[in-house]
Amino acid sequence: MHTLTVALGERSYPIYIGPGLLDSGLLKQHVRASQVLVVTNETVAPLYLQRVVDSLSGLRVDTLVLPDGEQHKTLDTLERIFDTLMAKRHSRTTTLIALGGGVVGDMVGFAAACYQRGVEFLQVPTTLLAQVDSSVGGKTAVNHPRGKNMIGAFHQPRAVLIDTDVLSTLPERELSAGLAEVIKYGLIRDREFFRWLQSNITALMARDPRALSKAILESCRNKADVVAEDETEQGNRALLNLGHTFGHAIETATGYRLWLHGEAVGAGMMMAAQMSEMLGWMPAEQLAPIRALLEQARLPLTPPGSMTAADFRSLMALDKKVLDGQLRLVLLQGIGAAVVTDQFDVQVLERLLEQSCQH
Amino acid sequence: MHTLTVALGERSYPIYIGPGLLDSGLLKQHVRASQVLVVTNETVAPLYLQRVVDSLSGLRVDTLVLPDGEQHKTLDTLERIFDTLMAKRHSRTTTLIALGGGVVGDMVGFAAACYQRGVEFLQVPTTLLAQVDSSVGGKTAVNHPRGKNMIGAFHQPRAVLIDTDVLSTLPERELSAGLAEVIKYGLIRDREFFRWLQSNITALMARDPRALSKAILESCRNKADVVAEDETEQGNRALLNLGHTFGHAIETATGYRLWLHGEAVGAGMMMAAQMSEMLGWMPAEQLAPIRALLEQARLPLTPPGSMTAADFRSLMALDKKVLDGQLRLVLLQGIGAAVVTDQFDVQVLERLLEQSCQH
Repeated sequence: MHTLTVALGERSYPIYIGPGLLDSGLLKQHVRASQVLVVTNETVAPLYLQRVVDSLSGLRVDTLVLPDGEQHKTLDTLERIFDTLMAKRHSRTTTLIALGGGVVGDMVGFAAACYQRGVEFLQVPTTLLAQVDSSVGGKTAVNHPRGKNMIGAFHQPRAVLIDTDVLSTLPERELSAGLAEVIKYGLIRDREFFRWLQSNITALMARDPRALSKAILESCRNKADVVAEDETEQGNRALLNLGHTFGHAIETATGYRLWLHGEAVGAGMMMAAQMSEMLGWMPAEQLAPIRALLEQARLPLTPPGSMTAADFRSLMALDKKVLDGQLRLVLLQGIGAAVVTDQFDVQVLERLLEQSCQH
Repeated sequence: MHTLTVALGERSYPIYIGPGLLDSGLLKQHVRASQVLVVTNETVAPLYLQRVVDSLSGLRVDTLVLPDGEQHKTLDTLERIFDTLMAKRHSRTTTLIALGGGVVGDMVGFAAACYQRGVEFLQVPTTLLAQVDSSVGGKTAVNHPRGKNMIGAFHQPRAVLIDTDVLSTLPERELSAGLAEVIKYGLIRDREFFRWLQSNITALMARDPRALSKAILESCRNKADVVAEDETEQGNRALLNLGHTFGHAIETATGYRLWLHGEAVGAGMMMAAQMSEMLGWMPAEQLAPIRALLEQARLPLTPPGSMTAADFRSLMALDKKVLDGQLRLVLLQGIGAAVVTDQFDVQVLERLLEQSCQH
């Protein structure tokens, strides 16, 4: 087992990574009082819920099973969590446990941020994407029909428990979607990791446990470093959003239904890389290896055929990275070096959108 | 004009108290970017909305008028604020302005806490209750059908602007409801202020501007001191909840419709005082002056006739002050001295409930 720490002063917490952690007793060690609510979804529940509940024996354990899918990451579903907490009379010392992917983690974290103005929660991510990204760092949210993650809070978990065994049941598409965020760390700040990924992408796609474990560890290490420096995204944390402005537009345009978050980020990163090259900021020869790696991870490289440049324009104007009317994008100066900026030639963005939407 | 400061490090902010502040230009000074959303309710809008909007000339000003009343302090109404922010494309640098009573302030504050994971907001309280209590201190929330203020956040405003002129249009009942929270400060920590209130209650009920101004100033001073010491209610801030556990039960039992919050707190404070006397903690002779002051403020002294002791038991078990199954109450050791404790004889609570519900 590997242990990392997200260093945030009194809000610091451990990330545990290893096989067989789900019912190892580690989870129970991080429950402060006698009452817990385990929230999961209908896909994960039959696979892992009972094992988690069993590992919490001796506590008052309630469970809630939500529908699966990004389209359910709404205020309405959030309300179901509050209803359960109230009906089962959970007090301010309760602990919420998020057992599932990014959707479950984001919603349970936000519910924990708001219930009685803040209770504790633990992350038990069961998708690669949640393990390498959304379960770490305390960003919680639900979607608004007009934009992704628009309603939320910064609320750090007390611990993140990553059982690498659960990846054996992960659908192919979810594996690829998770690898999009893994590749992101290489692109934005870790050229050595990018090279390692180029050498090990076949092993990762074949779910080699050692390769997956290393990819998760390096991703979490990168994420923890960035979050420790900038918890509430006043500065460099925004680099983690490479591909996300384009990606969120894709997800919103497709109703959070057709594309997985990681797939949208994959296409979004390709768009960001192309725009960086068109601006002359990234050497042209670096575009091919990025495309090759995303392709090997079986990620989409272009937005859905139904989207127009006008769709992007309209949806990106609502992105959280718009400050006082000014669109900011994460762009590359090369593999391993990203910047957040609103100082780019808008004509180039226009050309990118037109070209990306010509299928 | 008086200016107080709520001392919270980088989250410190001013409270301005005085006549004619609504359109004095002070509000605009606290807007950081070019975009604001003024949220108010249908009672306040015809009286003051235009003046506030006019005072913000030069900015992009959107407005939203909500229905009036505690029964609308829900997630559904909150969603209307998000819908407006999204439809009008407000970015992360927007400022929300809460123009109204406690319901508007609590909801707008919570919307500001969650929109894009946190934007700035200003409080412009138009009821006495909001001016002396809910607009100061950063507690924001909406109600859950099963309990008051159960879903919320700590999110401090950037400034509180209290125009004492607006009290001239306040309905009688609202004046009394506000005085409940004013009297609370005397009871929990300021015996001298309690004495001043005894001497000036007639002037206050007659809306003497100087008396009201002094009552607001002393209330805000007390509140600011308590909040500066304990922002997120880990300890003494809970003293501000004198009468609120009983009061919240009354509000929930009556569907947030029949009783104003301050009225419920008035009856709740009387119950807390009686219980304190029954426990032998507060000298018996202090009960009469408390009753007299609440009576002169035309506040109810007993819960509604429809409520039973069983109703109280059930509703109080869900109170936020329940920690791991243990009910905590704010009780008095005398006028000007309150304690938060779960160390009381439960039999006495039972007797109090039985006796309070025998109408």
